[in-house]
Amino acid sequence: MVTIALDIPTDDSGHFCRFVLLPLSAQAKGEPSGPKIVTSVIPGPKTRAGLQDLDKLQDTRAATMMTDLDKSIGNYVADLDGNIFLDLYCQIASLPLGYNSKALIEAATKPEMVQMLVNRPALGVQPHSTWAKTLQESFMSVAPKGLTQVFTAMSGSDSNETAYKAAFMHYQRLKRGKDGVVTAEELSTCMKNIGPGSPDLAIMSFDGGFHGRLFGSLSTTRTKALHKLDIPAFSTWISSPFPSLKYPLEKYQGENDKEEARCLAVAEEKIKQAKTKAPIAALIVEPIQSEGGDNHASPKFFQGLRDLTKKHGILMIVDEVQTGVGPTGHFWAHEAWNLTSPPDIVTFSKKFQAAGWFHRSELRPDGPYRNFNTWLGDPVRAVQAKTILHEIKSKDLVKNAAETGAYLKKEMFGIQSKYPELISCVRGQGTFIAFDLPTSDQRDLFVNTLRSLGVNTGGCGSLSIRLRPMLVFQKKHADVFLDAMDKAASCHQHKTK
Amino acid sequence: MVTIALDIPTDDSGHFCRFVLLPLSAQAKGEPSGPKIVTSVIPGPKTRAGLQDLDKLQDTRAATMMTDLDKSIGNYVADLDGNIFLDLYCQIASLPLGYNSKALIEAATKPEMVQMLVNRPALGVQPHSTWAKTLQESFMSVAPKGLTQVFTAMSGSDSNETAYKAAFMHYQRLKRGKDGVVTAEELSTCMKNIGPGSPDLAIMSFDGGFHGRLFGSLSTTRTKALHKLDIPAFSTWISSPFPSLKYPLEKYQGENDKEEARCLAVAEEKIKQAKTKAPIAALIVEPIQSEGGDNHASPKFFQGLRDLTKKHGILMIVDEVQTGVGPTGHFWAHEAWNLTSPPDIVTFSKKFQAAGWFHRSELRPDGPYRNFNTWLGDPVRAVQAKTILHEIKSKDLVKNAAETGAYLKKEMFGIQSKYPELISCVRGQGTFIAFDLPTSDQRDLFVNTLRSLGVNTGGCGSLSIRLRPMLVFQKKHADVFLDAMDKAASCHQHKTK
Repeated sequence: MVTIALDIPTDDSGHFCRFVLLPLSAQAKGEPSGPKIVTSVIPGPKTRAGLQDLDKLQDTRAATMMTDLDKSIGNYVADLDGNIFLDLYCQIASLPLGYNSKALIEAATKPEMVQMLVNRPALGVQPHSTWAKTLQESFMSVAPKGLTQVFTAMSGSDSNETAYKAAFMHYQRLKRGKDGVVTAEELSTCMKNIGPGSPDLAIMSFDGGFHGRLFGSLSTTRTKALHKLDIPAFSTWISSPFPSLKYPLEKYQGENDKEEARCLAVAEEKIKQAKTKAPIAALIVEPIQSEGGDNHASPKFFQGLRDLTKKHGILMIVDEVQTGVGPTGHFWAHEAWNLTSPPDIVTFSKKFQAAGWFHRSELRPDGPYRNFNTWLGDPVRAVQAKTILHEIKSKDLVKNAAETGAYLKKEMFGIQSKYPELISCVRGQGTFIAFDLPTSDQRDLFVNTLRSLGVNTGGCGSLSIRLRPMLVFQKKHADVFLDAMDKAASCHQHKTK
Repeated sequence: MVTIALDIPTDDSGHFCRFVLLPLSAQAKGEPSGPKIVTSVIPGPKTRAGLQDLDKLQDTRAATMMTDLDKSIGNYVADLDGNIFLDLYCQIASLPLGYNSKALIEAATKPEMVQMLVNRPALGVQPHSTWAKTLQESFMSVAPKGLTQVFTAMSGSDSNETAYKAAFMHYQRLKRGKDGVVTAEELSTCMKNIGPGSPDLAIMSFDGGFHGRLFGSLSTTRTKALHKLDIPAFSTWISSPFPSLKYPLEKYQGENDKEEARCLAVAEEKIKQAKTKAPIAALIVEPIQSEGGDNHASPKFFQGLRDLTKKHGILMIVDEVQTGVGPTGHFWAHEAWNLTSPPDIVTFSKKFQAAGWFHRSELRPDGPYRNFNTWLGDPVRAVQAKTILHEIKSKDLVKNAAETGAYLKKEMFGIQSKYPELISCVRGQGTFIAFDLPTSDQRDLFVNTLRSLGVNTGGCGSLSIRLRPMLVFQKKHADVFLDAMDKAASCHQHKTK
C-alpha cells in the first residue's frame, strides 16, 4: 500500500508539518441486513487453514474463528471463508462500538494518537504535558461517585492486582497507626517473602467469581479448575458463597431473599474467622459474575456487603471489568445498587479498551514508587477511551443498552415459554443477558447451532450462554438473534425428542 | 485541529475508501546540537505546576519531569519549561528509536495500525487473518535460537508471570507422566487454593533481581524493600546470591571466578534443598541485573546456570525485559553467552513496546484455555514492533550500540581515572553502561547535577547510575554526556573537598 506524504515547513525553524494522504481499510457504509453463512461446516476450510498456520507460532486450541477484519462492520463479524455472523460475543465482551467504527477510525489517525503511539511515556516518572487532560476527558469524566483518582493499568488482571496491592498497603498503614514506623524486621523479612514484612493478609472473593489469571488475581478467581490447576496460590485467601438465585425472580422472591441473607451471614462469619489467621484487607465482587455463569444478586445483597465491609474495616472492590462501560443499562453496573457509600475501588478494562481503577486519595501508598511500574497503562488506549465516551454520550448508548436489552429480554422470555424443557433462567440487566440449557453438552451444542445460523455467542458457567453485544446493538439486531435462538431451540427440541 | 477526509466509493458495493489529509505533530528536521537549560531550578515552575495539576488525579511523587513531546526529538527530550535534555533514561529504558521517530510516525497512520487500534481482537478465541504474518515479521524474525513459539503479553510483569504459569503446568505434566491423569482431589483442592491442586512449587530468582511487581513476579523480585513491603508473597519461593564482581575485571579475574563458582554452588545447594519442600519449576535470571544495580556476570556463570537447570530438570527463564532488543550490542544479551543449549524461555518488553516470551512448543499447556486471557497482548504494539525491527536492521542499530558503547565506556574509564575517589566500577555491555558513586546520597546528587547540566539519567541499586540511551545514540551524543559527566564529577569533587 502506498502512503502519499507532503512535508510543509512551519514557522518554527527546523520543524515541518507532515500531511499524509492515507487510504484506510474499506469501510462499509452500513451493516448487512443479516448474517450470511456460505460454508457447510463452521469453521470453514480457509479458517481452519488459517488457524493451522497460526498454530505453528501460538496455541490456537481455544480459537473458534479467524476473523477478516476488513470485511467486518458494526455488529457483524466476517470470517476467512466469507461467513458473516451477528456478533454477540464481541472479542470476549470487549468491543464497545462495533467493527470498523467510523468514530474510532477517525480518532486513530489524529495527531494526539500518533504522538502516544510513537512516544510511549513511563507515566510515573516522565508524564507528558497532556496526560492530566486526557485523564479528565476520559476516565475521570465517568468516575464513580466519590472516587476522585484513577490508577491506570494494562488489563483487567493488572487492574485488580494493583488494586489489591493498594488495599494491602492501606491495611498495614492503618495497623501501624499515625506515628507508626516500619520496623527493621519488616524491611528484612519482606526481602525473604516472609512475615511480618510480607504479611499474611488476604483478599476475599466469591465462589464463581472471576478476577483474572495472574498469580494474585488467580488466587481470587473461583470459576473452574481449568483456570487454577497446577498454579501455586495464596492458601489463606478465602472465598464465600455467591447467591444462587432461582428464576423467575418474582416467583422465588422469598427464597432468594433468604439465600442472599445466608450468603451475607456466611461472608461475615468468614471475615470474623479470618481475623485471627489471615485478616482480610479487601473483598472483591463482580456486579454480575460473568465467566462464572452470569450470576446475579439484588441491590440489597450488595448493600449488605457494603455494610459488612464498613463494619469490619475492610475495603470493597467492585470488579467492573466486564460489566462496566454501559452494557447493563447503567454506565457502571453498581450504580443500580444505590449504595449508601460508594465502593472503595472500582476496576475496569474491556469495553474501555484501557484498564485501571478508581479510588479515593486515601488509597495512595505512603510514599512514591510503591505501587508503580514502567508504563502504568498505555496512553494510546486512554486517548481512544475519549472517543468511546464521546460516542456513548452523544448517541445515548447506555440508554440504548437499557432499552434494547429490555426488548430483547422480554422476547427471550417468550422463547423460554415456548421451549420450557430446553431453555431456562433468562436473566439480565440491559443487554447483559444470559440463559441456561439443561446440560453442558447441550449448551455447547446450542452455541454451535447458533453459529451455524450466523450468530456468535459464548458460554459461561457450566450451563449458560451469555450475550455480550456491543453498545450499538439495536432492536433490529435483537430480532436477528431472536429468530436464530428460536430456530436453534426448535431444532434442539426436535433432536432431544 | 481540522481533519480533511475524502470518501471514494470502491468496486465493492456499499464500501468506500477514506483518504485522510492529516497534519501530524510538528517534527524537527534534526536534533539540537546539545542540551539547553533555561530554568535556574529543575524541575522549573511550569513543570512543577503541571505535575501539581496531574497530582489531583494520579500520584506524581515519583515524577522528575513533565515532558513536552511535541518539542522532543531523537535523543533529546523537552520539558514544559523549555529545558531540553539529552535523554539517557528514555522512559525507563523503554524507547527504542528516539522521540518522534519519523519511521514510527509513518507507521502510526498505516491502515494496518488503524485496523488494530479500532478492532482490538481477543487473540486466543478470534485471532484475525493477518496475525500470523504480524508475528512472523515482528517477534519471530528475531526469535532466540531454538525457540519456535511466542506467547504475547501486555508488559514485562505479565510476560514473566504467564511464563511462570507455563513452567508450573509443565512441571506438573512431567510429574504426572505420559499416562498420568489429573485426580479429583487436584480438581477440588485447586478451587480452594490448596495442594495438591494448587501445588507448593517455586520459582527461584537471584538476590538483586527484578522481574516485575505483580504478585507472582514480585515474589521473584529481590531488589528493595520498597518494592515488596506489605505485599503477601510466596514464602517458599527462594532466591540465591548473584555474583558480586570486583572492578576492574582484568585485575580481579581470579577473585571474580571464585565468586561466580561460589554463587553456582549456593544455587545448586538451594535447588537440592527445595526438592523436599517446594520444588523449583524454573529459575529466572536477568543477563544484567538492572533495577538491582547493573550487576554483571560472565558467560561462564550463565553457562553454569544452564548446566544446573539441565542437571536438576528445571526450566531456565532469561528475563530480557530491559536488556533485550539491542542495547547491549547483541539483539538479545544472552547471545553473548554462547550457551550449549538455548534457554527454555526468553521474556521481553520495553524497547519492543510489545511484551511476551519465546519458548519451545513443549511448553504449551496440555489443553486450551489454560494459559489464557482476553487480549493476549495488544496487536497495535506488535504491528509497531515490525517498524522498530525494520529500523534496527536497516540502520544496523545493534552494531551502533556495540560501537558507540565501546567508545563511551572507554572515555568513561578516562573520567573514572581522573576522579578515582568519586567514580568507580564503570561497567557495561554496548551502551548498557553504569558507574558507581561512593554513597546513595552522592549518587542521587550526581543524577541531579547531570540533569542541571542537561543530561537525564537514572539511578539503580544503591550506588549506581545507569545509562539507558536509545538505539540511535551515537558518538556525538556520547560526547555531550561525557562532557556533562566530567563537569559533574569536577563539581562534586570540589564540593567533597
